[in-house]
Amino acid sequence: MSGTIASANGVDKTDYKAIATAPLNSRNPYAPVPDFLSNVGSFQIIESTLREGEQFANAFFDTAKKIEIAKALDDFGVDYIELTSPAASEQSRADCEAICKLGLKAKILTHIRCHMDDARIAVETGVDGVDVVIGTSSFLREHSHGKDMAYIHKTAIEVIEFVKSKGIEIRFSSEDSFRSDLVDLLSIYKAVDKVGVNRVGIADTVGCASPRQVYDLIRTLRGVVSCDIETHFHNDTGCAIANAYCALEAGATHIDTSVLGIGERNGITPLGGLMARMVVAAPEYVKGKYKLHKLKELENLVAEAVEVNIPFNNYITGFCAFTHKAGIHAKAILNNPSTYEIINPADFGITRYVHFASRLTGWNAIKSRVEQLNLDMTDEQCKECTAKIKQLADIRPLNVDDVDSIIRQYHLHIKAGGDPTELELPDADGEPAAKKLKQSA
Amino acid sequence: MSGTIASANGVDKTDYKAIATAPLNSRNPYAPVPDFLSNVGSFQIIESTLREGEQFANAFFDTAKKIEIAKALDDFGVDYIELTSPAASEQSRADCEAICKLGLKAKILTHIRCHMDDARIAVETGVDGVDVVIGTSSFLREHSHGKDMAYIHKTAIEVIEFVKSKGIEIRFSSEDSFRSDLVDLLSIYKAVDKVGVNRVGIADTVGCASPRQVYDLIRTLRGVVSCDIETHFHNDTGCAIANAYCALEAGATHIDTSVLGIGERNGITPLGGLMARMVVAAPEYVKGKYKLHKLKELENLVAEAVEVNIPFNNYITGFCAFTHKAGIHAKAILNNPSTYEIINPADFGITRYVHFASRLTGWNAIKSRVEQLNLDMTDEQCKECTAKIKQLADIRPLNVDDVDSIIRQYHLHIKAGGDPTELELPDADGEPAAKKLKQSA
Repeated sequence: MSGTIASANGVDKTDYKAIATAPLNSRNPYAPVPDFLSNVGSFQIIESTLREGEQFANAFFDTAKKIEIAKALDDFGVDYIELTSPAASEQSRADCEAICKLGLKAKILTHIRCHMDDARIAVETGVDGVDVVIGTSSFLREHSHGKDMAYIHKTAIEVIEFVKSKGIEIRFSSEDSFRSDLVDLLSIYKAVDKVGVNRVGIADTVGCASPRQVYDLIRTLRGVVSCDIETHFHNDTGCAIANAYCALEAGATHIDTSVLGIGERNGITPLGGLMARMVVAAPEYVKGKYKLHKLKELENLVAEAVEVNIPFNNYITGFCAFTHKAGIHAKAILNNPSTYEIINPADFGITRYVHFASRLTGWNAIKSRVEQLNLDMTDEQCKECTAKIKQLADIRPLNVDDVDSIIRQYHLHIKAGGDPTELELPDADGEPAAKKLKQSA
Repeated sequence: MSGTIASANGVDKTDYKAIATAPLNSRNPYAPVPDFLSNVGSFQIIESTLREGEQFANAFFDTAKKIEIAKALDDFGVDYIELTSPAASEQSRADCEAICKLGLKAKILTHIRCHMDDARIAVETGVDGVDVVIGTSSFLREHSHGKDMAYIHKTAIEVIEFVKSKGIEIRFSSEDSFRSDLVDLLSIYKAVDKVGVNRVGIADTVGCASPRQVYDLIRTLRGVVSCDIETHFHNDTGCAIANAYCALEAGATHIDTSVLGIGERNGITPLGGLMARMVVAAPEYVKGKYKLHKLKELENLVAEAVEVNIPFNNYITGFCAFTHKAGIHAKAILNNPSTYEIINPADFGITRYVHFASRLTGWNAIKSRVEQLNLDMTDEQCKECTAKIKQLADIRPLNVDDVDSIIRQYHLHIKAGGDPTELELPDADGEPAAKKLKQSA
């Protein structure tokens, strides 16, 4: 069984096991122990900004923008790019064909209803794979498409066999999986696995699933099918990233994402948020596979296209993601960033900020930093230097390098017998303190 | 054991069990089965916007603003309000005293380091409880405070006994609990439980914990202490809401939140996001206890105070949280909102939007609505009416009531033999269609 998973997945799982769990494990007694089910260190991303993301309220991508986004996703390193159904409109079909012709490294998928009419259009576009979906919950069967399970079985197998006959990858997914009947679900997945579907998909279309529920369902499904398992989580109740993580722990192989999570309602698992989660759990795999330093640029591209601001609290790229304020935190961060940070901002090309101009901090942080820099300053001088730093912090945000530069500059100045009140600080957007320091040193 | 938990918690758990699990259970085979450990239907909120939130990069609350926020939190119905340590500054002490004098229903807590100096100041402020914290991980012990476990034990017990002697509630929490040694952790918690601490706290200070890890640790701790268990989750890796939920499933009693999640770095479990999660899991409990329709106002108050925008994808109150776009979704939503929504926006005083002006939708949604409204219109007329609706949708967002009004107006107009091209639509911010309709009916 584990052999089947590994071969269906196309990845040598054992290679990543140690990598995936070692970094947390070596310092953390609660990290999950290595587990043959887990794909935490060997997952693939199905990036759906150009499908799920196109269903976001503000998204109206023209062909040029779709191509720009597809290229950026490919450059970032996602495994698959999923596109809106070519059956949705003439323009959607033309865009799909245009993106297939770009010759990207990522495989191109399109997402269609489980219907032969749509399948016939999809296979002609040049896509590498087709993602088929149908609602299996009583809610959707009653209020959306009105089909029964026997019809779903019959159509699914017809569509799968047709797409396979064209030499194209095929995924079959239920919609609203967590409100579907378990026996219905397992029965249809077992049937499509038997006819050779490449992946089955579990979708929390309404965002109701909770992490342990996800783990249980995926683990159960892992015992029923030998093909890959893709998962799709909406974020209505705040669990889209956590659910994706638990799905991987239980043996899912593929995670659907979109840039900034854009999609229907408040969206799905965000690409950046998933990177934050996975770079902590499987740092070597994630850093080796994805161009993390391109994340911010990618998010800016999409944010601009759909006319939203990057949320202030966005994972990794939000303005405060690496900002430290409380005195106790700031002091420890200067000592060793790992005390309050598990993600290294440098991996994402981002700089850490420590707030020095707050009632919650003090000159202690500065004194501690002075000691780390092996400089010789009295408490009085540390306090005076802190005042200088706060003065500049009123003008612009300071990162650790800025603070170090001011400390060194102050130290040089007083050691040279200068009057500290005359010390010239770097200006807000002018010459960096570091450069000035080099010139004077 | 279960008797001990229920009495420590002060809530009759059995009353809420059925409520908590029935609504999902009755339609969902994957909902967790009722479980004697779970507090999903009987949790309490420790609201920390005025403590953790004050550590947010942009937060500089003056006394008047703190009082305004405290009153709004109390009105919303949170159980506890946690304030910055009175030892942080003279102003923090004065603010703490002022808030204690407001006579709020919520209990007032202050958050201090595990130190007698801080404890002596805290008990004089008039607070109902003191939250004590100390770093127990090797990271914090080495790089932050530099104390060993024997010192931590001794100080903790001294502080707890002192605070208890003043008749004030006391919580003892570790910091960075998920990177602490398990034996150290359980040993200190067992010791403080024995001397009668009211709550112990587990804190994921760096945001590294994953849901199943949280479940395992809380379940283990639940077997070691008989007091309440509070949990505090940072959101660096996107699991703060999911971890809070799993903590409740494992027997935690209290969840720390802040409005919009503001706090160090990208913050903690957001109050609104937790409400989204819990209103789905335990609707009666949540709707009966918290004034959900005040959430948006509360978030606007805090967002304005810390000068951030509400994220576009914010839980419940984000502009797109209840916006539906894809044709298949829009059609089903009109049929029955439960098909794609598990949260009723009306519970939060919010309106649902269905996008009609998109290449992803069609006249099908309108035809389906016409049928639901029992109106008699040909396909041709439905298409024409759809065009009218799209015309208005270009000017402003439409909710279901707007669309219904236009449909009814169009229907009246054609039945009266009018030329549909002459139909006057409501203007962008002028008279609502519904009102015009009443006048013409």
